[in-house]
Amino acid sequence: MPAAATFDDVLAAAARIAPHAQPTPVLRSSAIDALAGCRLAFKAEHLQRAGAFKFRGACNAVWALTDEQARHGVATHSSGNHGAALALAAATRRIACHVVVPRGAVASKLAAIAGYGAVLHRCDPGIAAREVACATVVQATGARLVHPYADAAVIAGQGTAALELLASAGPLDAVVVPVGGGGLAAGTALALAGVAPDCQLVLAEPSGAAETRDSLARGERVTDFVPDTICDGLRGTLGQPGFEILRAHGAEVLVVDDADTVAAMRLVWQRMKQVIEPSSAIALAAVLGHPARFAGLRVGVVLSGGNVDLDALPWATAA
Amino acid sequence: MPAAATFDDVLAAAARIAPHAQPTPVLRSSAIDALAGCRLAFKAEHLQRAGAFKFRGACNAVWALTDEQARHGVATHSSGNHGAALALAAATRRIACHVVVPRGAVASKLAAIAGYGAVLHRCDPGIAAREVACATVVQATGARLVHPYADAAVIAGQGTAALELLASAGPLDAVVVPVGGGGLAAGTALALAGVAPDCQLVLAEPSGAAETRDSLARGERVTDFVPDTICDGLRGTLGQPGFEILRAHGAEVLVVDDADTVAAMRLVWQRMKQVIEPSSAIALAAVLGHPARFAGLRVGVVLSGGNVDLDALPWATAA
Repeated sequence: MPAAATFDDVLAAAARIAPHAQPTPVLRSSAIDALAGCRLAFKAEHLQRAGAFKFRGACNAVWALTDEQARHGVATHSSGNHGAALALAAATRRIACHVVVPRGAVASKLAAIAGYGAVLHRCDPGIAAREVACATVVQATGARLVHPYADAAVIAGQGTAALELLASAGPLDAVVVPVGGGGLAAGTALALAGVAPDCQLVLAEPSGAAETRDSLARGERVTDFVPDTICDGLRGTLGQPGFEILRAHGAEVLVVDDADTVAAMRLVWQRMKQVIEPSSAIALAAVLGHPARFAGLRVGVVLSGGNVDLDALPWATAA
Repeated sequence: MPAAATFDDVLAAAARIAPHAQPTPVLRSSAIDALAGCRLAFKAEHLQRAGAFKFRGACNAVWALTDEQARHGVATHSSGNHGAALALAAATRRIACHVVVPRGAVASKLAAIAGYGAVLHRCDPGIAAREVACATVVQATGARLVHPYADAAVIAGQGTAALELLASAGPLDAVVVPVGGGGLAAGTALALAGVAPDCQLVLAEPSGAAETRDSLARGERVTDFVPDTICDGLRGTLGQPGFEILRAHGAEVLVVDDADTVAAMRLVWQRMKQVIEPSSAIALAAVLGHPARFAGLRVGVVLSGGNVDLDALPWATAA
């Protein structure tokens, strides 16, 4: 188990991933600023390679390995953005990638993972079955496990998005990011502590998976919950490393209902012409839902990803 | 009737609209380059104010007026992007804007036009009824008519998109733009003649409204056709000023079926995470449909607009 990630690890990650990751732009919308009553700077991680910030962490983890460690490739379990990100990151180093995916996962997502050259391993649904299957793959292949969020290199890599945001957007009063397993949230906390200690970290969490709020309030991780949210990237449980970093740093959690997330997603599509997924839109929804909290502030929002099924848009489900 | 637009008018337009228009970015996609077999530079006019390149021409027309000419505002007939663009352009000069719209036009588009402060005037559908209604409004109000495309100031303004594209993207072998009424096509022809005479102009036209191809082939404007295409921005008839500029400059017309346009639109949403409308996607569809024509070239593509009804996406109509 590597040591906990630090701000220096975020700086090292920024240098390590620079040859591979996309420096994404910061977008602005005067129309949405007017609605929100604050000045928003959107970090466009949906334009990151493989369509989500996840490539930063995966890429850092892959390139932090020694040649010896990388020899048998990497492995993870994910049917979502981390699986695709790790597959692409492994491809940049020309090493093998094994991704354990549950039976019944969305075919288009699996096609994306396979398209980057990863080997898919099927398992039964459920986190326990996935972890067992992944351990089996690691043992059989000698691949290094790269966990989606409970991994110091992954957390450090995710923190590079906030570094870039602050460098491009100038001083910010708050940065709002979605929280699921806590990799982006923890990485952002490290980045803010290093370069903008007065900038507040705000986490946006679905009301149907609000265990980060509960974990931080109780001072211990809540793990016995069944997520129920449209935000498919935020159904995971806050990991131990993320929990510790967030507890030490301090973070405000704003809980958002799915209907508000869908409305924010539609607003970004309509006004900014950007395809973002629900797990990204939740951060803007948190701002729009708390006008007094953000009135007049300079607010960074990480648009974390844009991988959405165009055949099943959330506002079309009632039709 | 003002004189025909020239390259100097495009340069003047660029200076005139600079305080108001958005300098849009040039986007690239290695995934789409790989599919197309060429190197594409996408000029992101869907990120222009009011969501389309149309703001350039409308803004140039509005600010080219003397104070005396502008005193009673401007008028046009359009239920689409030009109506919204002219309304916003008039708002930047704080003058009145009258927009004649046919009964039955899409409510969300009318709301956008009214949202920028324009006065809506209803008329019966059909181009003849629209022109009569618009003439009546002009006579009653003293407003200056700003035609969507048969207008030298509008054509010059549209040409500024290609100027910016060439300045940002570097040398290009070809620039592909959609053609409907011919404002963008003619403005682009003027811009290329001035700064990149060796760069070929390629026009993408729907097979259900391919009168520009026929007009250029015959050497006279074809006006007796009934458009049948999903590209709602390209149903107009090539205007006389555009026809003359395009005939003098020379332009290749590639005709595209709607199904290929819809596939290209979906590809841009999926891979580039950009919301573009069918009338924009047709330009990429033309490139993808002619791999031998563009193989290995540096190709500029103007993504002309992103105003699309999110409740009626073309790939969902069969569902």
